[in-house]
Amino acid sequence: MRSKKTPDIKRPDGSFDQRALARLISEIENDRDTAETMLAKLYRDPDTVQVIGITGPPGAGKSTLADSIIGKLREAGKTVAVVAVDPSSPFTGGAILGDRIRMSTYANDPGVFIRSMGSRGSLGGLAHATFDVVNLLRSTGFDAVVIETVGVGQSEIDVLAVADTVVLTLVPGLGDDVQALKAGIMEIADIFVVNKADRDGKERLVAEIRMILELNRDRFGWVPPICETVATEHRGIDGLMEQVLLHGAYVRDHRDAVRRPKLARQLEKMAADRINRDILAFLGKGDKFAAWLDAIMAGERNPYQVIQEIGSFISVRTEDRS
Amino acid sequence: MRSKKTPDIKRPDGSFDQRALARLISEIENDRDTAETMLAKLYRDPDTVQVIGITGPPGAGKSTLADSIIGKLREAGKTVAVVAVDPSSPFTGGAILGDRIRMSTYANDPGVFIRSMGSRGSLGGLAHATFDVVNLLRSTGFDAVVIETVGVGQSEIDVLAVADTVVLTLVPGLGDDVQALKAGIMEIADIFVVNKADRDGKERLVAEIRMILELNRDRFGWVPPICETVATEHRGIDGLMEQVLLHGAYVRDHRDAVRRPKLARQLEKMAADRINRDILAFLGKGDKFAAWLDAIMAGERNPYQVIQEIGSFISVRTEDRS
Repeated sequence: MRSKKTPDIKRPDGSFDQRALARLISEIENDRDTAETMLAKLYRDPDTVQVIGITGPPGAGKSTLADSIIGKLREAGKTVAVVAVDPSSPFTGGAILGDRIRMSTYANDPGVFIRSMGSRGSLGGLAHATFDVVNLLRSTGFDAVVIETVGVGQSEIDVLAVADTVVLTLVPGLGDDVQALKAGIMEIADIFVVNKADRDGKERLVAEIRMILELNRDRFGWVPPICETVATEHRGIDGLMEQVLLHGAYVRDHRDAVRRPKLARQLEKMAADRINRDILAFLGKGDKFAAWLDAIMAGERNPYQVIQEIGSFISVRTEDRS
Repeated sequence: MRSKKTPDIKRPDGSFDQRALARLISEIENDRDTAETMLAKLYRDPDTVQVIGITGPPGAGKSTLADSIIGKLREAGKTVAVVAVDPSSPFTGGAILGDRIRMSTYANDPGVFIRSMGSRGSLGGLAHATFDVVNLLRSTGFDAVVIETVGVGQSEIDVLAVADTVVLTLVPGLGDDVQALKAGIMEIADIFVVNKADRDGKERLVAEIRMILELNRDRFGWVPPICETVATEHRGIDGLMEQVLLHGAYVRDHRDAVRRPKLARQLEKMAADRINRDILAFLGKGDKFAAWLDAIMAGERNPYQVIQEIGSFISVRTEDRS
């Protein structure tokens, strides 16, 4: 299954050809068909690779934590690929996150590869693109892949379907809105970090997390731990790292139960994305879409009548093609 | 085009049958086909209705601002429907936001209708459901619809395609992450609010917004104003309300230029959502999907080979059905 392209990325001495890898990723990002064909060939899924997703609301200290985790992985002699994903910044292409990491200690470390990704298109494209890049990195021989995402919305939840271990970073006292924001992502978090644990309100936040964990107990035996850290002072990082590695071992031991539902989410997203592209191409093609919009603007039709018509135009063929 | 159902909602005295409306919305939310059929009949788009979207990061004071705007609309004798959308809370169904508004001054006001909506499913379902509910409210005779969303991610941007006027609420000093978060939503904001304008860092935030507005100037003659408020003390609300009404007039005067691209985004989203449902139903049906997952878990195939196979199974029929 291994294509001749992979050895070009990982050199015999264990280091990576970062420029070749960056080129490969650009090819993947720029053309979906190329990505599909390339990854159908290159894809590998070694048990030894751990994909660690780090997420949380703005201001929770994710970048500092990511930095610490990368540091610990490097100390253990592991090679690390970092993917900084920013779903809400079409302008910067995720560059702000990426730059922050790039400016860190590991900028010139040949065992660390850093890539930024921003939002492209509104129809689930970023999650799919992230799957592709992470799957490529997983396939090319890195020991660990760290995904950092900004925020705790649906985009982040989608993106993290590709992560083995999801670390959710929260901080005390972010206000009541955080209450509302937390729920969606709570379900997919494997490890909770209460960062800035020297702040007021820590006990309350820990109690709130415990309460939600009680409601959502059965995870094939894994009870998400709550790690307290002060990332800026490197406090609590060893404890967090221990949990990250424990979870990695847990995923290996319960591969089918843990990976299968994640894989199902990825497949659904990828299939939907593939069809979406066809729909958008169809809608954009010719004057049909423009004519529909004209009719709506003129009050001759309404959007729901048009959708019914589109539905009769486009249909999903579910029979085998043979 | 007016169905016999609409008059049941709005009574001859101008008040609304809130229970009948709530029931109608539940029907829409629970069954997509019903929603499509019902809205194809009920849909109306009177020029006089303004749909106002209020968004911004957690802690920006959106609920207090929404409250003030509702108050001003009520003072002017207008009926108001409020839709509280929380894309990231599948557990609460958006209830936290909604409750906050419900507990406010307008809870027992017969001229105010309040509805909460939370995330359902990960494939763009919430945006589509919000379009449906807002389009229903627009059709049933309210003078204004206020949408409040939590956050500034892609889900919120999608949801706000149905709003005529987008109010983006920011506050000074929310940290560097807000920098990154702002970009995506900046493009769709019609009015900027710098809330908590008595805080340090106001000048810097205003300057940053101005800078981004410079890059993104041409909006068919509308230059998004920056309103400074202290919502908790009702300061700056009159100025904000003036801009909201000005923008409403602007949308009426430039209906085609403003509404058409928004309508196009809605249609794309709705069409994609419709097909997604077919795909998911297909993937979930029978043992096909399970067999694919088995093959991936066993290492016999990889996800990209499966997607290529799914692609050969499902196709979009673009010919007319006649």
